[in-house]
Amino acid sequence: MKHSALSRLGQRAEAPPISWLIELSLTRPQLISLAAGFTDGETLPVKDARELLCEVLRPGKSGQTALQYGTTAGDPMLRELTARDFRLKDGILDNDAAYSPDRMIISNGSQQMLYMVTEAVCNEGDIVLVEDPTYFVFLGILQSHGLQGRGIRMTQEGIDLECLEATLARLKKSGEIRRLKMLYLVSYYQNPTGVNTPFAKKLAALKLLRQYEKAAGHPIYLLEDAAYRELRFAGEDERSALSARGFASRVIYAGTYSKPFATGTRVGFGLLPGPIYDAVRSIKGNHDFGTSNLLVQLLARAIESGRYETHLEALRRRYAKKARTMLAALRQYFPKEVSWWEPRGGLYFWARLPESVPAGVKSKLFHRAVAQDVLYVPGELCYANDPTRPKPANEMRLSFGGGSEVNIRAGIARLGGVLKKFVGRP
Amino acid sequence: MKHSALSRLGQRAEAPPISWLIELSLTRPQLISLAAGFTDGETLPVKDARELLCEVLRPGKSGQTALQYGTTAGDPMLRELTARDFRLKDGILDNDAAYSPDRMIISNGSQQMLYMVTEAVCNEGDIVLVEDPTYFVFLGILQSHGLQGRGIRMTQEGIDLECLEATLARLKKSGEIRRLKMLYLVSYYQNPTGVNTPFAKKLAALKLLRQYEKAAGHPIYLLEDAAYRELRFAGEDERSALSARGFASRVIYAGTYSKPFATGTRVGFGLLPGPIYDAVRSIKGNHDFGTSNLLVQLLARAIESGRYETHLEALRRRYAKKARTMLAALRQYFPKEVSWWEPRGGLYFWARLPESVPAGVKSKLFHRAVAQDVLYVPGELCYANDPTRPKPANEMRLSFGGGSEVNIRAGIARLGGVLKKFVGRP
Repeated sequence: MKHSALSRLGQRAEAPPISWLIELSLTRPQLISLAAGFTDGETLPVKDARELLCEVLRPGKSGQTALQYGTTAGDPMLRELTARDFRLKDGILDNDAAYSPDRMIISNGSQQMLYMVTEAVCNEGDIVLVEDPTYFVFLGILQSHGLQGRGIRMTQEGIDLECLEATLARLKKSGEIRRLKMLYLVSYYQNPTGVNTPFAKKLAALKLLRQYEKAAGHPIYLLEDAAYRELRFAGEDERSALSARGFASRVIYAGTYSKPFATGTRVGFGLLPGPIYDAVRSIKGNHDFGTSNLLVQLLARAIESGRYETHLEALRRRYAKKARTMLAALRQYFPKEVSWWEPRGGLYFWARLPESVPAGVKSKLFHRAVAQDVLYVPGELCYANDPTRPKPANEMRLSFGGGSEVNIRAGIARLGGVLKKFVGRP
Repeated sequence: MKHSALSRLGQRAEAPPISWLIELSLTRPQLISLAAGFTDGETLPVKDARELLCEVLRPGKSGQTALQYGTTAGDPMLRELTARDFRLKDGILDNDAAYSPDRMIISNGSQQMLYMVTEAVCNEGDIVLVEDPTYFVFLGILQSHGLQGRGIRMTQEGIDLECLEATLARLKKSGEIRRLKMLYLVSYYQNPTGVNTPFAKKLAALKLLRQYEKAAGHPIYLLEDAAYRELRFAGEDERSALSARGFASRVIYAGTYSKPFATGTRVGFGLLPGPIYDAVRSIKGNHDFGTSNLLVQLLARAIESGRYETHLEALRRRYAKKARTMLAALRQYFPKEVSWWEPRGGLYFWARLPESVPAGVKSKLFHRAVAQDVLYVPGELCYANDPTRPKPANEMRLSFGGGSEVNIRAGIARLGGVLKKFVGRP
């Protein structure tokens, strides 16, 4: 057989590293995983979900509705509750079209929304700008579709705008700008760095992108992945790019209830500008003609009853506490040569080793860590295959999401012990 | 702006007719829909689902597991139960590798499996053979991916093998065989015709496909869509193509629990040969890294407890009864010039008008029917855009799945009244 059995996409598709890491941690109970972006087990709303599902599945018509097909875009009540909620979060009090439930599509987690948007917007060979580093499963989507990711340098205040501008100018000069379709930002408590991007920076990025649209010959979208937005520890919410007046036609917003409510329920959503909305709804029809009505109604009822908000408050306090636990452990157990970014929300610390110490999948350090039953996400997995810069290999993503505080402390202690063998402390 | 904002796929994607028909029937309660493939409302397992979810979500660890991420391939227990069940259905008593749970991936209904398999196997411009007529949402998948569907004539005993052979010979002669990737069969109580394909025909098709693999230069798969398999009214189950000894490496089997249990739960599965399995699991990782664990555990528990089987027996009796009701109504109310195929399972009758009477989406007949508040699926929607034959426009798919018996009778009476205005009865 000369030809492979697989399509180009089928050949390019690789198991996301997260699958492998999740499976490793599920099958080795003695292993402490600081890798998987699991949500906190003990806080999971088991009682809420049970009681809400009993209400959703009450005898009679309404119980039947939850077990029947819904519409492709998803339950109108969940869309209305969500759209209003996010409009108010952004401080918009009037009826702004950007937050219309008619622009919203419910998806299987925000992950499916990222996938469908990429399908709707990008052709093989196109270019997508991403944070450097970024969410690795999004890189898997790019990879499988034959797309090029170009990294924009990340700072503790979000992407470096000068780097964005220089990249755009370079793409314009080379003519590649005609293949540039999107800038992808994980704008809240980013996966993997924990960085929260200020609204002003989103606005500045939108203005820059617009300047290059003429050269591109088509719209350049900002795909805002807000998966961790709800998981801030305290303080004020940052406005989303949707609230940038005059730019709603260029913003694609992907949100989720998986992380803030329960990852096992897989309900996310997108708010999408007109042409993208139509295409994504059609693609959603082809994928699965609509997310499970049972799950969607569970979420709608959770929000309507106020249980979602109550749960979320508890979850925030819990994560804030676990982050403090990890911080204390890092200070206690990590060698002083290792630095980290301290998050104000989300699930992750981003740690940086001396440049001379590789921490990648094939590194001795990673293998030693696994042998010592502690797992982290090698930072190199979070970098696009961008030929314009070498991939840093001396970083690690450390999650405090899934583990107990005892395990977080023990995991960091184990990892600290491994690190001390690799990082000079003469 | 010279370039569209959308990718080629985004531009080609069209809302599946089913979305539009479902939404029409959801928003016009007075309308009797004989169109949507809804399952029977009154039989939906509301009480079973409620009680099972209460067990799944019991306090403690196991309740937490259901609300947490699972693996990409899906819960091992559901895969084991399903694989064993389908092996036994096919009369295979030993451990046949074709039915290994390690070849199984859980998906969001079988629909997502069809989508992912198409992604894994087909490149833009490739050819897929389909029944003529076939499941229209699969045609939507082909359309959006820039694939060509070629229709193989349908008989009341499944595809016409002579037509299959002639088509393969023609493709070989023209060289197009190198772009032929799959034969897609909805082999049980087909959507839209209700036809059940005998095992002997599946085996003969597999043998024919194999003869042409050398000319193709790659494997040619049989994608068996068994969405309606469980919905036979009575009698013996037909063996699946998986049981064709020596052909397991060429069979992709897509099944579902949506239709036999509850469409609102969206749990389906695929049994896939090696290279396709790996690619589809990676694609699944990129789509959503695994179907909702809550839904998957609900189904596993439904099967394990025996409630699924009990429910299914009741559902079969119910559909058999509704089919008899529709049959009696057709005999009573339809003009004698209209003929139909009587199903022995599934959800559909397939009716044929005189060739001179168009019944398509743009026909006067369809519009008159909608004006009279009765909806059917125009048969023409179920035909691929195959340039080698004109599309028949004088057929209709009539579903007895969702309606009550009163509504089935009333709907057929209304439609019969409309038909009599168009079909000569001098």
